[in-house]
Amino acid sequence: MSSLLSDLRIVEVSAFVAAPLGGMTLAQLGAEVIRIDPIGGNIDYRRWPLAPNGTSLYWTALNKAKRSVTLALDRPEGREIAQAIITASGEDAGFLLTNLPASGWMGYEALSARRDDLIMLRLTGNPDGSAAVDNTVNCAGGFPMATGRGGEPVNHVLPAWDVAAGLYLATGLLAADRQRRRTGRGQEVTVALADVMLATVGNLGYLADVRVNGAVRPPIGNDLYGAYGRDFPTADGRRAMVVAISNRQWKALGKATGLADRLAMIGPLMGVDMDDEGGRFQARDAISAVLAPWFAARTLSEVEGAFAGSGVLWGPYRDFGQLVAEDARCSTANPLFREIDQPGVGPLLVPGSPLGFPGMGERTDHRPAPGLGQDTDAVLADLLGLPSAEIGRLHDAGIAG
Amino acid sequence: MSSLLSDLRIVEVSAFVAAPLGGMTLAQLGAEVIRIDPIGGNIDYRRWPLAPNGTSLYWTALNKAKRSVTLALDRPEGREIAQAIITASGEDAGFLLTNLPASGWMGYEALSARRDDLIMLRLTGNPDGSAAVDNTVNCAGGFPMATGRGGEPVNHVLPAWDVAAGLYLATGLLAADRQRRRTGRGQEVTVALADVMLATVGNLGYLADVRVNGAVRPPIGNDLYGAYGRDFPTADGRRAMVVAISNRQWKALGKATGLADRLAMIGPLMGVDMDDEGGRFQARDAISAVLAPWFAARTLSEVEGAFAGSGVLWGPYRDFGQLVAEDARCSTANPLFREIDQPGVGPLLVPGSPLGFPGMGERTDHRPAPGLGQDTDAVLADLLGLPSAEIGRLHDAGIAG
Repeated sequence: MSSLLSDLRIVEVSAFVAAPLGGMTLAQLGAEVIRIDPIGGNIDYRRWPLAPNGTSLYWTALNKAKRSVTLALDRPEGREIAQAIITASGEDAGFLLTNLPASGWMGYEALSARRDDLIMLRLTGNPDGSAAVDNTVNCAGGFPMATGRGGEPVNHVLPAWDVAAGLYLATGLLAADRQRRRTGRGQEVTVALADVMLATVGNLGYLADVRVNGAVRPPIGNDLYGAYGRDFPTADGRRAMVVAISNRQWKALGKATGLADRLAMIGPLMGVDMDDEGGRFQARDAISAVLAPWFAARTLSEVEGAFAGSGVLWGPYRDFGQLVAEDARCSTANPLFREIDQPGVGPLLVPGSPLGFPGMGERTDHRPAPGLGQDTDAVLADLLGLPSAEIGRLHDAGIAG
Repeated sequence: MSSLLSDLRIVEVSAFVAAPLGGMTLAQLGAEVIRIDPIGGNIDYRRWPLAPNGTSLYWTALNKAKRSVTLALDRPEGREIAQAIITASGEDAGFLLTNLPASGWMGYEALSARRDDLIMLRLTGNPDGSAAVDNTVNCAGGFPMATGRGGEPVNHVLPAWDVAAGLYLATGLLAADRQRRRTGRGQEVTVALADVMLATVGNLGYLADVRVNGAVRPPIGNDLYGAYGRDFPTADGRRAMVVAISNRQWKALGKATGLADRLAMIGPLMGVDMDDEGGRFQARDAISAVLAPWFAARTLSEVEGAFAGSGVLWGPYRDFGQLVAEDARCSTANPLFREIDQPGVGPLLVPGSPLGFPGMGERTDHRPAPGLGQDTDAVLADLLGLPSAEIGRLHDAGIAG
């Protein structure tokens, strides 16, 4: 197990993608992350896709390496116990990570009254606290209207804002922890999913392009913007993405395809500077016209052979099945992955943290997701010091799950 | 300025999106981030989109709140100075963040020989160290084949893997810093862009779905998977995305549209349980058939009026121009944003960190991007203690830019 954060103890009260991913990111670096759910599970516990026995593959994938506690959060005694777990003592504890409405018993005020150095990370939908999810944030951000070939907007399938928000939560937690270690002060840290989208649109220059140039990026299919990149069908019905950003990559593409002489004619033909990435972007249709027959005459495997060791920047398209079947990076040949047994599901290929620590040896923190509530008794006993008779009473009373 | 990380000093040698975003994420939380570039700028310095005077809106957007030092990195004396800046003393310094090939003078071995507690964050393309960019990683990850309406793959326009990788770098740097503060030990931390993609595909359950169910997620347009969500054209040629995941959101949608009675007929019609998100997903075409005329009869503004305060989860589609023109969240009404003067560009609406700290008052760290090389002399003097005559000699010799 990674020992990097092994002294940290974090409580998570969450659902869906962003906050669970934030917690899992820290859990896979060694932190103890205790996810507290209502008895029977939160609203994400049965989310698709499911295994044949009904276990959510989505939930198990997003809650790996955590502990699970279930409590009757709709009853005062259950809430009291949850508060006690969240605010339990420990120099490297006192963290709450949540994307659920955090008011009343789970508000910062109530919790910090019990532990004044509490660090609470709270994800909301909009900056005013109103609800939003990845899809209802994404539609307003401009990207769907710039995706595909135009005509109608295209939503991303990757919940990219949720993923980014989860990683901002992890960053924010460690930043707030750092300050608390220096000053002793805790604090509430907020992230709005819409702000993650808006900041990213700004960080990539799109807002400035509107303001300064009045330019609204149009959809250009799978082409790169501002440099050369396009996808091509191959002779065997597959597809390859080719990119040439640097002059070195551009030269490599000409050499590997044997088309350097023809590509050199495009500068004068189109009146652009082909030693400039912007010039190659402007001439992209002419470039593609020269390259397309080369790809169409070769199978994907022949393309791979021609590009091997050439310095050409390219990649094959794969669906999720082909990714699993074909890509050596998506196997235990890559230290990112390990084959583990996921209780309720069976043997799975499971990724650990993409953060690697070469000096600490192989990544080994590939713990499975917990069974729902499997750690309730241990946490009540170890963290709150409850005797087993009291834990039994809480089960009988339907307070502990 | 946010004081959260104000004692941290980080050196960045980078280009493009991921590592610059990682550095900027920490800079906007108050860290001193010194980006070192070759004299004249690195390969991203002129990247599109550009302002009319040629200033890259992309570069300025991704390098806000940093300091800029330029050195002749192709000459031994320039490299020696860069090494000295990277390894300069300070308990809260000794960090290098890079996505460039890090060998030789910039390798961990060479740098840690000068400062043995160095923390180095290094982004590569593939786990074996070979080159890859967002587009050549994304094509293999399955998402383009599951995006849009099928027929051909659709690339995302948001460089989602670069964004996620940048945030993993920020998380990894703070995690390694935390361990160094406890143990005194530095280390090299690596992230491969392909691993960020692969881990995310796994974390979202796609790999398990292939393994357990043999299921390869097909493209389903803008619909949600596993719950109800679809986009609808409005009477005025705009478009709205509507989502109902929870039963509460589903009921709100029926009530706000006045179509609850009709929607209630769909359960028996389609033979599904409409109180279950999976049932609503299966019946999504029937649901959409009932809802579509309601949207088609209303302008976007009328839809907005009908949904205001209703608890319906929805959002309008906007292109980048409409985002700037229409969305109050994309304005200084949102504390995320501030209007600042970006040297070389002019007044801009600029996002700070999406991480908010309500207890620390308003977010104020909205520093612009530096002019290229503007901090060279100050860093050489303050950090390395070079006298002004020596700095002058370095300029004359073309070592400092």
